[in-house]
Amino acid sequence: MTARYLEDYTVGQRFCSGRLRIDKERIKMFGAEFDPQPFHLDEDAARDTIFGGLAASGWHTAAVTMRLLVESDLKPAGGIVGAGADEFRWPRPVRPGDELRIESEVLEVRPSRSRPDQGVIKVRTTTLNQNDEAVQIIVANLVVPRRSTQDDKEISG
Amino acid sequence: MTARYLEDYTVGQRFCSGRLRIDKERIKMFGAEFDPQPFHLDEDAARDTIFGGLAASGWHTAAVTMRLLVESDLKPAGGIVGAGADEFRWPRPVRPGDELRIESEVLEVRPSRSRPDQGVIKVRTTTLNQNDEAVQIIVANLVVPRRSTQDDKEISG
Repeated sequence: MTARYLEDYTVGQRFCSGRLRIDKERIKMFGAEFDPQPFHLDEDAARDTIFGGLAASGWHTAAVTMRLLVESDLKPAGGIVGAGADEFRWPRPVRPGDELRIESEVLEVRPSRSRPDQGVIKVRTTTLNQNDEAVQIIVANLVVPRRSTQDDKEISG
Repeated sequence: MTARYLEDYTVGQRFCSGRLRIDKERIKMFGAEFDPQPFHLDEDAARDTIFGGLAASGWHTAAVTMRLLVESDLKPAGGIVGAGADEFRWPRPVRPGDELRIESEVLEVRPSRSRPDQGVIKVRTTTLNQNDEAVQIIVANLVVPRRSTQDDKEISG
């Protein structure tokens, strides 16, 4: 798989990933460092909360999703660089032992108005558990270099 | 500080946090686990990328922001539970040694239509570095319990 430029992306393209298991101990460690609330730290304390049991921090799910995206075939030249997100939801909690994977779809491809050497692709990434239930949906705008300007640079340089 | 219910939040309320320093080694460790791309892993490799040097993964910034939010005076009863975000941007990279803090503002307070025991507050959280430059802006919807229904439960129980 070679890296892709803006010109290599088309609306409707889809990308998948392998699976990554979320262990109970990693949920608690992530929670202790970044999201120290009872439902991310301890099974007993989590029982009487809105989650009804231990659940991964949404930011842990987001971080694991990023890992899966980096390992997927999306592979923009210059790396996966997010300018931000238009939509971001956690429809269902991630539980200890869940195995996550992603499905990404390109929704939009557009050159930048201010930067002729780059463009933006809008990508919806759905993170699914082992029962194919969505646990996170993010629609992100990624900065991607353009191939044509790359060639211009080589000529003018 | 006692925990707050939906009735305790008003539009325009603001909440601040302490500061948290982002170390170079933690940036690299987070990158290696969740966002293994050159600009999050190694100073030399990062130099020739869009970031022009080592930068924290946006998900690391998001996770640290959550930590600061949990430690702030926002303190919803039942914890900080995000249903999702309407806006999410990283206007500027986080560099090794940056000291981050947050400023949050309540934009909207509304009871849930389907769940009489809870509501949603919309909160904009800006993460700032030591030069007061915004490194992340998120407008999130948080699920918050209502006090009135809590009292009903105690009466009927």
